[in-house]
Amino acid sequence: MIIKVSIDASGGDHGIPVTVEAGIKALSVFQDLQLTFVGDQSAIEAELNKHSPASKTTARIQIVHATEVVLMNESPAIALRKKKDSSMRVAINLVKSNTVDACVSAGNTGALMAISRFVLKTIKGIDRPAIMGRMPTMTGHTHMLDLGANVDSSPQALLEFATMGSIAVEQTEGISKPTIGLLNVGEEEMKGNDKIKKTSELLKASNLNYQGFVEGDDIYKGTVDLVVCDGFEGNIALKASEGVASMMSHYLKRAFTRNWLTKIVALIATPVLKDFKSSLDPGKYNGASLLGLRGIVVKSHGGADSDSFFVAICEAYTEVNAKIIDKISSQVSIELEKK
Amino acid sequence: MIIKVSIDASGGDHGIPVTVEAGIKALSVFQDLQLTFVGDQSAIEAELNKHSPASKTTARIQIVHATEVVLMNESPAIALRKKKDSSMRVAINLVKSNTVDACVSAGNTGALMAISRFVLKTIKGIDRPAIMGRMPTMTGHTHMLDLGANVDSSPQALLEFATMGSIAVEQTEGISKPTIGLLNVGEEEMKGNDKIKKTSELLKASNLNYQGFVEGDDIYKGTVDLVVCDGFEGNIALKASEGVASMMSHYLKRAFTRNWLTKIVALIATPVLKDFKSSLDPGKYNGASLLGLRGIVVKSHGGADSDSFFVAICEAYTEVNAKIIDKISSQVSIELEKK
Repeated sequence: MIIKVSIDASGGDHGIPVTVEAGIKALSVFQDLQLTFVGDQSAIEAELNKHSPASKTTARIQIVHATEVVLMNESPAIALRKKKDSSMRVAINLVKSNTVDACVSAGNTGALMAISRFVLKTIKGIDRPAIMGRMPTMTGHTHMLDLGANVDSSPQALLEFATMGSIAVEQTEGISKPTIGLLNVGEEEMKGNDKIKKTSELLKASNLNYQGFVEGDDIYKGTVDLVVCDGFEGNIALKASEGVASMMSHYLKRAFTRNWLTKIVALIATPVLKDFKSSLDPGKYNGASLLGLRGIVVKSHGGADSDSFFVAICEAYTEVNAKIIDKISSQVSIELEKK
Repeated sequence: MIIKVSIDASGGDHGIPVTVEAGIKALSVFQDLQLTFVGDQSAIEAELNKHSPASKTTARIQIVHATEVVLMNESPAIALRKKKDSSMRVAINLVKSNTVDACVSAGNTGALMAISRFVLKTIKGIDRPAIMGRMPTMTGHTHMLDLGANVDSSPQALLEFATMGSIAVEQTEGISKPTIGLLNVGEEEMKGNDKIKKTSELLKASNLNYQGFVEGDDIYKGTVDLVVCDGFEGNIALKASEGVASMMSHYLKRAFTRNWLTKIVALIATPVLKDFKSSLDPGKYNGASLLGLRGIVVKSHGGADSDSFFVAICEAYTEVNAKIIDKISSQVSIELEKK
């Protein structure tokens, strides 16, 4: 089977230089991968020429020209209504027409969600799509959804997120019956607001491997395979986490650059500090999945470099291989029949 | 003026050894401070004897015996109804009877809030109290409320939190008109759920120095002096932040203890790593304020050591000195008259 992925080449903070370099790396790693770069044709060609990839990868590259780009701070409504020839829109259209199996974009998250939802529609039985990402933990990594697509999810929507997330984790990671935790302000039954208590009841009554409430620090302890939450809390937890990590890096750097003596210590400690950084490299966890759509769409971090955009392409490749859309659809229809 | 503070001596993970040592330190630093230790009298006396503080501090120590202790995982309802002679309850009763000016406890947060609210009542015009804490930032520290007392706050409640927090920051930190941000999933006006949009309108119409929406990472950038949020998101952001910090410390330690060579590097880097750790020591930010009550109650982290419990006592001392209850009460009544 050939796996076909469209790349929103112009999307993200860095656009074509990063997306094309990452794409070439992916083509060299996966021999059954075919990529369609969407964006300004001549700019994509110029970038491809710089890298002069081996002829066996060039045969697996296609370019589709798009005249517009969705800006990083553009309103999703404007991007959806006014930019019908944006690289993002055209890349998603290719999923809709079954020309490709998946799309990867580092563009504006709100616009990507709005356009994907409009073009691809949701799976029958799923009311709203959600964004699932991988997060590092003390022992490896875990998964969390929703990371910000929805800001007022009902208990039923949270149950749908858990169902989709469970299937996606099972299929892409090979974890049978992933353990699931519901993000709350305490682990005890009595904790939390009404919405979270109702959601917990729904999860207990489901066939999912639900373990109960987890707290914010459980994300990074790796207590469960999948953390479920509304996108409002999920996004705040994610951004607060990024903020703490940046602040700690800032203070670590400051301590090592305080004077000539600490700078010498920094030189000596360089390999150890590199080892530390690599164990937490956020690029390793790049590539969030827009679950619940009738097609695979993977969102890369906007500021991704080519190494981390490559990781997002790998995620799309894995999801296509695992046929997660078919599996989510059939599981959701089983759940619907039960009602 | 003598400043009188009651200490829930038996509260917290470590109880009397930590609270008494911290208290003695506070008495030696503040010559106008008088402390009432509440808990098992003989255990408190034994601990005091170990330290044999100078006679001029002993004259400022009182002990009030209490026969019970609120457990760390006890239900707030049980603690409130069944343990009327707990060290926590008696320490708060001393605030109610004006025997002391403030209370400090490292005990169970839910129980402390429930008992404080029942015994002290809220300030007229304040519907629900909130927990405000200090958080480290890249440039110093900021303040955030609510950190978990309320899990479903209305826009009006969030406005009350902002009003109380603003006065507390102004009075205890000497910042005139503190800048305020509302925690959301984006900075743009259109972002967030209905509740957050309505709250933003209320804040804009107020006399507060409201700057608009802030995101999770803005907490640690120090974008504003005060971050306002519902306790559900506040607690999740706080715990997720603690989780990331623990995970990063874990990986840093692992990198430096990987083999004999990295252990030698660790020895060389010890002063630098100590400098780094001290810049982020959470103990420096210990002491969260239960705002909105008719009395000063400061919550210490349950696992606080004596240095950080001392910081919580300092917070109570500062709040008494700044007369924050009177100032919150008069500001809230001005706001009420406007309506």
